[in-house]
Amino acid sequence: MPIVKVWSPFAKEIELISGEEVLGMHRDETAWWAVEAPGVQHGSDYGFRIDRGAVLPDPRSPWQPAGVHGLSRRVDHSLFEWSDAGWRPPPLGAALIYELHVGSFTPQGTFEAVIQKLDHLLELGVTHIELMPVAEFSGNRGWGYDGVDPYAPHHAYGGPAGLKKLVDTCHRRGLAVILDVVYNHLGPSGNYLGSYGPYFTDRYKTPWGDAVNFDGPWSHEVRRYCIENALMWLRDYHFDGLRLDAVHAIIDTSAVHFLEELAAAVACLNAEVSRQHVLIAESDLNDPRIVRPPEAGGYGLDAQWNEDFHHALHAVLTREQGGYYRDFGHIADLAKVFSTAFVYDGRYSAHRERYHGRPATGLPGSRFVGCLQNHDQIGNRATGDRTAGLLSPGQLKIGAALVFFAPYIPMLFQGEEWAASTPFLYFCDHQEKELAEAVRQGRREEFAAFGWDTDRIPDPQAASSFESSVLRWREVREDKHQDMLNWYRSLAELRRSLPDLRDPRIEGTRVHYSENEEWMTVQRGSVLLTCNFGPQARTVECAGCREASLLLASDSNIDRGQDEVGLPGYSVVMFALK
Amino acid sequence: MPIVKVWSPFAKEIELISGEEVLGMHRDETAWWAVEAPGVQHGSDYGFRIDRGAVLPDPRSPWQPAGVHGLSRRVDHSLFEWSDAGWRPPPLGAALIYELHVGSFTPQGTFEAVIQKLDHLLELGVTHIELMPVAEFSGNRGWGYDGVDPYAPHHAYGGPAGLKKLVDTCHRRGLAVILDVVYNHLGPSGNYLGSYGPYFTDRYKTPWGDAVNFDGPWSHEVRRYCIENALMWLRDYHFDGLRLDAVHAIIDTSAVHFLEELAAAVACLNAEVSRQHVLIAESDLNDPRIVRPPEAGGYGLDAQWNEDFHHALHAVLTREQGGYYRDFGHIADLAKVFSTAFVYDGRYSAHRERYHGRPATGLPGSRFVGCLQNHDQIGNRATGDRTAGLLSPGQLKIGAALVFFAPYIPMLFQGEEWAASTPFLYFCDHQEKELAEAVRQGRREEFAAFGWDTDRIPDPQAASSFESSVLRWREVREDKHQDMLNWYRSLAELRRSLPDLRDPRIEGTRVHYSENEEWMTVQRGSVLLTCNFGPQARTVECAGCREASLLLASDSNIDRGQDEVGLPGYSVVMFALK
Repeated sequence: MPIVKVWSPFAKEIELISGEEVLGMHRDETAWWAVEAPGVQHGSDYGFRIDRGAVLPDPRSPWQPAGVHGLSRRVDHSLFEWSDAGWRPPPLGAALIYELHVGSFTPQGTFEAVIQKLDHLLELGVTHIELMPVAEFSGNRGWGYDGVDPYAPHHAYGGPAGLKKLVDTCHRRGLAVILDVVYNHLGPSGNYLGSYGPYFTDRYKTPWGDAVNFDGPWSHEVRRYCIENALMWLRDYHFDGLRLDAVHAIIDTSAVHFLEELAAAVACLNAEVSRQHVLIAESDLNDPRIVRPPEAGGYGLDAQWNEDFHHALHAVLTREQGGYYRDFGHIADLAKVFSTAFVYDGRYSAHRERYHGRPATGLPGSRFVGCLQNHDQIGNRATGDRTAGLLSPGQLKIGAALVFFAPYIPMLFQGEEWAASTPFLYFCDHQEKELAEAVRQGRREEFAAFGWDTDRIPDPQAASSFESSVLRWREVREDKHQDMLNWYRSLAELRRSLPDLRDPRIEGTRVHYSENEEWMTVQRGSVLLTCNFGPQARTVECAGCREASLLLASDSNIDRGQDEVGLPGYSVVMFALK
Repeated sequence: MPIVKVWSPFAKEIELISGEEVLGMHRDETAWWAVEAPGVQHGSDYGFRIDRGAVLPDPRSPWQPAGVHGLSRRVDHSLFEWSDAGWRPPPLGAALIYELHVGSFTPQGTFEAVIQKLDHLLELGVTHIELMPVAEFSGNRGWGYDGVDPYAPHHAYGGPAGLKKLVDTCHRRGLAVILDVVYNHLGPSGNYLGSYGPYFTDRYKTPWGDAVNFDGPWSHEVRRYCIENALMWLRDYHFDGLRLDAVHAIIDTSAVHFLEELAAAVACLNAEVSRQHVLIAESDLNDPRIVRPPEAGGYGLDAQWNEDFHHALHAVLTREQGGYYRDFGHIADLAKVFSTAFVYDGRYSAHRERYHGRPATGLPGSRFVGCLQNHDQIGNRATGDRTAGLLSPGQLKIGAALVFFAPYIPMLFQGEEWAASTPFLYFCDHQEKELAEAVRQGRREEFAAFGWDTDRIPDPQAASSFESSVLRWREVREDKHQDMLNWYRSLAELRRSLPDLRDPRIEGTRVHYSENEEWMTVQRGSVLLTCNFGPQARTVECAGCREASLLLASDSNIDRGQDEVGLPGYSVVMFALK
């Protein structure tokens, strides 16, 4: 007999509405309301009416076929027939992560259509795909960070069945799948949680409004809401891990931080099902506590994005100095990021106008994800331009080589591997006129402050912003793009085949560089990378180069001397030393 | 040549004003303004004028002889002649702390007058006196938590010279001195810090308004302001430690928490001067991180108040169930607090409406301060009634015995030792009419919510509220009070003479109790306490009692059998087992 439940501490009356049926629900002492509803089966649409108000979707709705304002649809997860028995994901230390946005990865923009591209990813050497948030958000297109139904895969992507089929197929093909989830806020449109209970608090502010209530009265139910959401994705959708959006905006003064509790819950699941699931934080804190084990006072997450890695690399390659790139730009920063994880490990940040971070001493590189680009770093630019639009092919190859050569987990963003020409713009599809206008204006003002001509800033609400961001797969077959794709494939193959490159010890990385001559050399065990960031040819010291075997070079005009190597402008070369 | 300095990042112009002198100050790249001011010597009055506004006191004013709105007075700390060379405080593990409020401890209400009472404290067995905040606050009387000049000892107490003399005399008499400091907020009246820079933030709220900016832009200077304040008290006033008010209201998401940075700074000072200074937190978090060492991911403070200890003891003795006492009241809670430090170590709190705390596993008892009463627990009652007004002498003796018998650092509140008849009311002396009225109303509403008749709630602004809180020292010589004083002296002596009672291991404490029969037995090593919380005589199991030596009993009618002891109602007895 199906029982429908919902938590709501302050409601005086709640009715379950489904078709013609109206059932009064009963509250227990923990503020959970329940009713036996024989008619509400897999596939039934339903909603709740609190204190005779409007019919609202379920906070834990598993499916919103008609969007954020529509009824919820019941899903019996046990009905899906999984074919991935025995699946075990590769460990993070051996991972190549590929971040993709379901809506723009293919012209169809669906889970189903992603399946058609798995061959491409496998040939590239990807081990983990990471889906940008899929939880139901307002409208038909969007990045997903303004989701409001955290338990419901987006209707426009193909809903619960489509997502399960994607994960199941990935597993059969040997690919792990990570999902991006957002616990720091909910979106502005279709957010009905506040009608049910104290999910939010005004004690703390986030850049997106009121913070989620992780430590006030009733916070245990809010934490449970998030933790059971995480477990749901891992258990019912077979995800191999979660990427936790902006954990720095999760303010929690409890003795047990939400992230630690979440990690413990996932550890319990791992023990129960005898399979590893991973938690990867996006963290702007440069705080190693996030990934330290609980016995060392940490939260025990598996890894975190290394923002400093991206910024140091981007700033050296592009020479950009706007916004947070102001804090980077020296090869010294890049050298530091290779040998100690964080550039800002207690150092003064001019951009933040304060000291930032602390050393990640003793942590292995497999606790950090490094990338040359990701959705944020591209999409948060006014015109969503990828690195490919900013740099020469030689520079791009240097950037990619450093991602794969670093002691961190490499991550790519969709299309990066062929230097896709499409931008990745910020796009949304809010249905409320005022909200749409506010987002449009906000975006304009944000970049006007940087001196942009507001007319040149694409309108995030325009369909064209989304459409121009959809990958053009025909590019893959074009020579220019093929060349880059081969480079990425070779780098992935190198990392796979050379244990020195997967050595997790950050401290083992030896870096030399010249700020003036714009070159850098990275040695990990017996493999060595040397690159020339500048336009002029340079001769770089390189003991034992002549006898070393050449692994990969971005330029055929590399000139090997006895203990030195001549590098053309914007070039990179990798050797295996004897 | 005296240089006067002040930090102010957004000012366009700052002038130093002293007498007829007006000196333009010069800003360096760190936003510190400085000027050579030969005329501004020890004893000179001065202020700053920002952008041609009003003359304001120095944020680091060492003395505000005319109160919070007046000019600052320069103090050369090197001029004081200290006589405490070679002084070393006793360790916290051997401490008996005595909390006192300078204004109400004596009729004179001055630092000087405290000195007259040191004999009393020494005879009692006190090792550390803890002064409630002395930093300049608005008006002539107040608890001190609304201080606005954190560097300036209150003018009405005797200013810098008076305070130094008190500390110096204490040291010569063998007493350590701890100061209560407030870094979570500043008071509402005379708070000019915001005119100088971003000392506050609206990203977080505290119960007292905007939070202090510990992690935003320029927070390094705000942290430095607090840390240098702490070091100033330890270095220039020779304090032996600081009690940090309400650390749960210090919201800081930095990778290095303010408290950890503060503890590290004090550790550096300790190494420099080869003398131990202690940091004791008031923490409502039940988070052992506060007192764990940094190598275990902690902040490294020396100790914290154990709020659960107080609440569990108070609720069992008084049977009160209002407010947070709702979470306590069972002898089981008291038993738990004796054997694991926190009652709420992850347990659900009905008062907080959420789960609270985490276990303090492995921590020694000397990391926690336990008390039967303190300024807050008395003064935050509507009529400021002490435990002595709520309980019989027998019950008071049980309460005191448990404080001294616990594995925690015992702390007393002024007058507790003789069951003083005076209340400790909430009192303040705001000069602004509106503010005064707001505080008065706020207090009324707070207690009206608990069903109090608002006419019966003393007016915190009334001089009588303060005056009735001043200790009546003649009581000490009255029989009833003498009896209690002797009890406290005996308990202190017992703790001093029995190593088992100073054993810091919490786990070594064995507790038995009967909830129904209202008795509890605590054994620590070979010493044993047994008490009867109820009015009826009880027989309590007590193996080896007959052969044990009686250490102390609150009642002469204790009846010792072979393996049991008969306890009259409301009585406590302590034995040394053979």
